[in-house]
Amino acid sequence: MQPSSEHSDFKIRQATELDCATILRFITQLAEYEKLAHEVVADEKKLAATLFGDNPSAEVVIAEYDTKPVGFALYFTNYSTFLAQPGIYLEDLFVDITMRGKGFGKALLTHLAKLAVERNCGRLEWSVLDWNQPAIDFYRALGAEPMDGWTVNRLTGAALTNLAATA
Amino acid sequence: MQPSSEHSDFKIRQATELDCATILRFITQLAEYEKLAHEVVADEKKLAATLFGDNPSAEVVIAEYDTKPVGFALYFTNYSTFLAQPGIYLEDLFVDITMRGKGFGKALLTHLAKLAVERNCGRLEWSVLDWNQPAIDFYRALGAEPMDGWTVNRLTGAALTNLAATA
Repeated sequence: MQPSSEHSDFKIRQATELDCATILRFITQLAEYEKLAHEVVADEKKLAATLFGDNPSAEVVIAEYDTKPVGFALYFTNYSTFLAQPGIYLEDLFVDITMRGKGFGKALLTHLAKLAVERNCGRLEWSVLDWNQPAIDFYRALGAEPMDGWTVNRLTGAALTNLAATA
Repeated sequence: MQPSSEHSDFKIRQATELDCATILRFITQLAEYEKLAHEVVADEKKLAATLFGDNPSAEVVIAEYDTKPVGFALYFTNYSTFLAQPGIYLEDLFVDITMRGKGFGKALLTHLAKLAVERNCGRLEWSVLDWNQPAIDFYRALGAEPMDGWTVNRLTGAALTNLAATA
């Protein structure tokens, strides 16, 4: 699990509850990069409960270089009805700004692609912001295809509880 | 669980392995409506294995009217890092063409909104085709917001196995 031969101290490992402060830091830094930091209400306690409790809602791996966390990936299982097969959905991928361009991001994606194949998943998917051209170019170079023509719809907050109340 | 008072024979129930033929029929009809039928490789056996085996990848509910299936919803748990909270992602929602306009689609969405609230999920999300204006209008009327500015990227087939092989 080495992004290149010159980074022999690089590894990817499963996260544990002890990583919650690191995960929160990466989530916040990614949100700042995405200009969406105002939407972050996550805290360490909520992360611990939802990721490392009895019924985890997602999985997390930490990328380490010289035993220091330099990035992370958070993902969960999704499902394709057309394939009748599970897939992996990558919710967050982040590499520390000072560690960019060294192959850590590609190593995390490669790790997940391998995991998808091992788990007999048909797809690895994630979302990218339309203005993030460096990321778009990077993903295209890896063979990813944009699902143009589809838009995610979201029901949240009062709209969600209001609809639920009519059931 | 009634779309309106005149449909007292309507109910929503959990699907079982015995519903795989019905589920496949609805998946195929939805794909035809989406002009994507050529992408469907699902079959009953794959559906049974991935939805009703030891480790189900998604959940399914069937909408029945007069004890006959008239629609379905297939969904799984996703995760928001900004909220540190799970959500429900609705992969497929379909109502038989002859049964449209009677409130069955809204009843299925309402059922899922209620489930999301019960499970302490922060969001209910799904994707819509940009040309499907009747669906877009219907979802907006329920309070859903389009996640404009984001595009899903997909790595599948040879591109996925090729990247995995470099790990």
